[in-house]
Amino acid sequence: MIKAGIFGASGYTGIELLKILRRHPQVDVLFGTSESSAGQKLSDIYPTTDELPLVVAEDAPVDRIDVAFLCLPHTAAMSTAKWLLAAGVRVVDLSADFRLKSADEYKTWYAHDHTAPELLSEAVYGLTEINRARIRHARLVANPGCYPTCSILGVYPLAKAGMLSDAPIIIDAKSGVSGAGRKPSMTTHFVEANENLSPYSIGHSHRHVPEMEQEIKAAAGKAQKIVFAPHLVPINQGMLATIYVQPRQAMDANALIGLYRQTYEAEPFVKVLGPGKLASLRYVVGNNQCVLSLTAVNGTTIIASAIDNLIKGASGQAVQNMNVMYGVDESAGLI
Amino acid sequence: MIKAGIFGASGYTGIELLKILRRHPQVDVLFGTSESSAGQKLSDIYPTTDELPLVVAEDAPVDRIDVAFLCLPHTAAMSTAKWLLAAGVRVVDLSADFRLKSADEYKTWYAHDHTAPELLSEAVYGLTEINRARIRHARLVANPGCYPTCSILGVYPLAKAGMLSDAPIIIDAKSGVSGAGRKPSMTTHFVEANENLSPYSIGHSHRHVPEMEQEIKAAAGKAQKIVFAPHLVPINQGMLATIYVQPRQAMDANALIGLYRQTYEAEPFVKVLGPGKLASLRYVVGNNQCVLSLTAVNGTTIIASAIDNLIKGASGQAVQNMNVMYGVDESAGLI
Amino acid sequence: MIKAGIFGASGYTGIELLKILRRHPQVDVLFGTSESSAGQKLSDIYPTTDELPLVVAEDAPVDRIDVAFLCLPHTAAMSTAKWLLAAGVRVVDLSADFRLKSADEYKTWYAHDHTAPELLSEAVYGLTEINRARIRHARLVANPGCYPTCSILGVYPLAKAGMLSDAPIIIDAKSGVSGAGRKPSMTTHFVEANENLSPYSIGHSHRHVPEMEQEIKAAAGKAQKIVFAPHLVPINQGMLATIYVQPRQAMDANALIGLYRQTYEAEPFVKVLGPGKLASLRYVVGNNQCVLSLTAVNGTTIIASAIDNLIKGASGQAVQNMNVMYGVDESAGLI
Amino acid sequence: MIKAGIFGASGYTGIELLKILRRHPQVDVLFGTSESSAGQKLSDIYPTTDELPLVVAEDAPVDRIDVAFLCLPHTAAMSTAKWLLAAGVRVVDLSADFRLKSADEYKTWYAHDHTAPELLSEAVYGLTEINRARIRHARLVANPGCYPTCSILGVYPLAKAGMLSDAPIIIDAKSGVSGAGRKPSMTTHFVEANENLSPYSIGHSHRHVPEMEQEIKAAAGKAQKIVFAPHLVPINQGMLATIYVQPRQAMDANALIGLYRQTYEAEPFVKVLGPGKLASLRYVVGNNQCVLSLTAVNGTTIIASAIDNLIKGASGQAVQNMNVMYGVDESAGLI
Repeated sequence: MIKAGIFGASGYTGIELLKILRRHPQVDVLFGTSESSAGQKLSDIYPTTDELPLVVAEDAPVDRIDVAFLCLPHTAAMSTAKWLLAAGVRVVDLSADFRLKSADEYKTWYAHDHTAPELLSEAVYGLTEINRARIRHARLVANPGCYPTCSILGVYPLAKAGMLSDAPIIIDAKSGVSGAGRKPSMTTHFVEANENLSPYSIGHSHRHVPEMEQEIKAAAGKAQKIVFAPHLVPINQGMLATIYVQPRQAMDANALIGLYRQTYEAEPFVKVLGPGKLASLRYVVGNNQCVLSLTAVNGTTIIASAIDNLIKGASGQAVQNMNVMYGVDESAGLI
Repeated sequence: MIKAGIFGASGYTGIELLKILRRHPQVDVLFGTSESSAGQKLSDIYPTTDELPLVVAEDAPVDRIDVAFLCLPHTAAMSTAKWLLAAGVRVVDLSADFRLKSADEYKTWYAHDHTAPELLSEAVYGLTEINRARIRHARLVANPGCYPTCSILGVYPLAKAGMLSDAPIIIDAKSGVSGAGRKPSMTTHFVEANENLSPYSIGHSHRHVPEMEQEIKAAAGKAQKIVFAPHLVPINQGMLATIYVQPRQAMDANALIGLYRQTYEAEPFVKVLGPGKLASLRYVVGNNQCVLSLTAVNGTTIIASAIDNLIKGASGQAVQNMNVMYGVDESAGLI
Repeated sequence: MIKAGIFGASGYTGIELLKILRRHPQVDVLFGTSESSAGQKLSDIYPTTDELPLVVAEDAPVDRIDVAFLCLPHTAAMSTAKWLLAAGVRVVDLSADFRLKSADEYKTWYAHDHTAPELLSEAVYGLTEINRARIRHARLVANPGCYPTCSILGVYPLAKAGMLSDAPIIIDAKSGVSGAGRKPSMTTHFVEANENLSPYSIGHSHRHVPEMEQEIKAAAGKAQKIVFAPHLVPINQGMLATIYVQPRQAMDANALIGLYRQTYEAEPFVKVLGPGKLASLRYVVGNNQCVLSLTAVNGTTIIASAIDNLIKGASGQAVQNMNVMYGVDESAGLI
Repeated sequence: MIKAGIFGASGYTGIELLKILRRHPQVDVLFGTSESSAGQKLSDIYPTTDELPLVVAEDAPVDRIDVAFLCLPHTAAMSTAKWLLAAGVRVVDLSADFRLKSADEYKTWYAHDHTAPELLSEAVYGLTEINRARIRHARLVANPGCYPTCSILGVYPLAKAGMLSDAPIIIDAKSGVSGAGRKPSMTTHFVEANENLSPYSIGHSHRHVPEMEQEIKAAAGKAQKIVFAPHLVPINQGMLATIYVQPRQAMDANALIGLYRQTYEAEPFVKVLGPGKLASLRYVVGNNQCVLSLTAVNGTTIIASAIDNLIKGASGQAVQNMNVMYGVDESAGLI
């Protein structure tokens, strides 16, 4: 049995992670950490979940675990990761702290010095489908953001095939409210969010943009301009990115579907829909799949990419990565 | 033209009130007060509303208005009301401060001394359909709570006809989230409230209970036990109370409908549905109506009473009361 | 491995059932039947589910299965059950066809002759917590309706302890829209159901009433009057019943909680909340639990009972029953 | 008083139209037509609306009205319009029948011969802000579709200023479910639409595309390629188009805001937000406004355009057009 601990167990990604790990036949979760609820059991907060003991991070019995999942805010995760690695624990970090390869770029986007820059080159960007080989042996996996997971999986086959022109990639993304976390705010107040639809941080200002640029550049072998427009939609879980690409040469829908199916042929968690079908949230909410559909019109390729932001976009992919790290069935816990 | 000011203009009831008053052919709104947004215009916050100037309460030109609407928290409203009345301004108070006739009872339920107890006997409980005659000449109207409006209108015909037995009246009420106000909290966080349904303050603990007891006692001529169970439902506006009464003698649906139609015969804002029809939120959301349906079964009378909590349950009824106070068409602004 | 077939696999309960059974370590689902989609695989309809082959019922290889789940409309299920039992297949019927013990009562409520009345006495009402012993050896389990599951579990401890007076039990129930099935109608049209809240079939007219009466009578040892008021709320999955009981003698909340905890002590799928806590949908949506809370006021007991209508109220309980029938871990597939 | 009739009064646009006209001080609505509910009053269906008599179209007293609003399906509207015009009634047609200038194009997109092609040149495309002068004297106004209203108002200032390059205009549009009408279907079934988000008819296949092409071409003086991707979002009313334009030369946000404010300077129903602010549905739901925001990034202009699809996108604009036709205050009924 793989022994695991969850740092930051009472937020949405922590709860989702535990739900997945309870179903995992080869994992024992020994503890969760929580600053606000330490001393309680998780079932004191959510009566229908586990009696998982909640402790403060300092009291966590890290010598008894093999792997730690960090569901902590960015800037908090980096010091915890450092400490855990030193104690011989492998780490899957769900925060943004190890996703960017450059400490400078981290500072630019997160307005905070990186306090463990020596780990950046070692950290593996945990988009499983793209970096599986390196994840296998990683001590530290930087689990991707939800928007980058959804967007990169949508663009990757074209990027890798060298099909991207220099025109900007336009990503119009729509996310459920759980993506904003569990802390109440005016934006996430029910009456403000319900029956509403709002763009936010549009253009080139959302913190998930540099992740996308970094990974698409790696796949395409050249820098690529991105225009990114996220929107908040009144649903709990789920994310859809509608992506507009001007390819170097026109491809019809069948050619696109062929390319995408070939790229993702062996992937258990990517489904490429056939001609005339369109990705939709209902296919992915509650599971670890990414569903993709391809349309071609007027020289433009339209990719619709759907995931559950808390599962494939966070906790599910974290477990998928752990499965790869420990050489167990990649789908374990994720059915 | 009636000149009006809104104290507390940037909350949900303030915004709704302004929307109604803009359509009112005989009212000019001169200002709104706001602690957080003073100095701005309301259109700076909501670009599609009025350019209503927002001022702090102390700077409000109260000598220029005839009537003030108080959309303030309880305990804040009572001192403002006192000051305005002294300045010769008539007051419609949407808070709870003048609803209970007893300063002791106020203290019991609101954990705060009443600082204007001398006004309590003068204040008229502003359930228009029941107290219209006294509202006409009132200087101070205590606009009812949303749950009491919905519940009392549902029980009043039976109470007045002396049909209530000694069995407790059971009121199972369901409210949209705007009833909880505009301040973010864990309970009203989108992800917590959406796809959820929660009872709260059930039994005899919600602050709207003493209002209902006071007014039903006044109508029935005897004290009546109430069991009250409010529930939060994932909708923005609207409220439904399903009320279970054991009448002193059995009445069938037709007799009940007859009694209710007779009681509310001349009322522009109460609709009693015919046999086999049931009240539903979609009939009342966005308007000032209360829709009632009656069912009889196994000796029990089931009354379903629906209102829009922000309109008939707050700002609409406030304007209805003002119309009565100034002798203008009771429906003005409310079509 | 237990070999299973699903009759009526493409409706909401069929889909939910398959999702649960895919996680069940001791079950193989061999086929689903579907009149409209026979010849396809389930993944042709829902790309992220199984490649389960869909066949017409007549072509189903019933000789290869041990157990069949019937997710068919009432009146369709009874003939199928008869045929399957004759072929040596054990049956868990999710329809209403074998819930009532009396063929006459069936006809009264369902306006249809019962065509397999000889099976009624053999069929076991599948509320697992109450009938576990008889389910173990049953050939035919009548899986309860969602409202009865929620309501009976809420009343059962009082009924069994002889605490019910002769006053009617008032059940104010609120259900998500999936309870109405997958067939589009005006009532379930998004624009009509969203931001709405509607009572329907209130009083003593909903078809789930006789089930409740039958089972509460069996537990209490005497007939009990029920007033039942279901409401449609704008959520997908989940059901809450707020139940008002006048017990034979007053019990305070602690005594009630004590009685309920004792009754459900060994139950893996019933949680009785402590003092001051209230049942809420978010605890149960997506799992097989029933969460109960108890409040006492003015001589009235208020029980809030929450389940997921598609899981504990349908497919989850069906699997729970199958687990009992085959002597495997009662929680298998349901974590 | 202007005397009006509504053809097709019981659908969503008909109901919304009546709600607006009831508030209009210079309009009397004499009747509504309804095939399914003729002989009833509208209040028999919606108890809180007017006692408007519903008749079959043939029985409508057209000689008593000045203007008719057609809330009929396309292909049904054209013959009705012809008949009404012959009877001397001015017509505001909310269907698609007179929006396209070419009968051939109509046939291509609607798969139906146009039976009143002689009226096409006379019909004025009723986007009030663009065609006000011609609407004033029109006998027949073709009220625009909701997507075109939202999209064209977003692009028009750039088109008119000659700023559009040859790159395709990408319109990613999100609509509430009422845009799909009142007829139940699988797509609009609550459980399917709720907590879901689906693109549909994406690329160049939605029937609103030729309207946009026609009007943007008229403004720009040259044909313009459009890529259009509509999405269904789980809200009742409201529509947001996020539009990506590559202008002929880069403009920063301030220059864009300046251009847009100048273009819409005198418009009562268009609001251009200042720098850093973004359009959002909550500003427009329930009113006749179009709210626009402008962002510039990487050479791309991002326009967010929000309207209420039933008001500015249908019934509100219809009344706005009628106000222009009769020379009354353009805002009458629309406050």
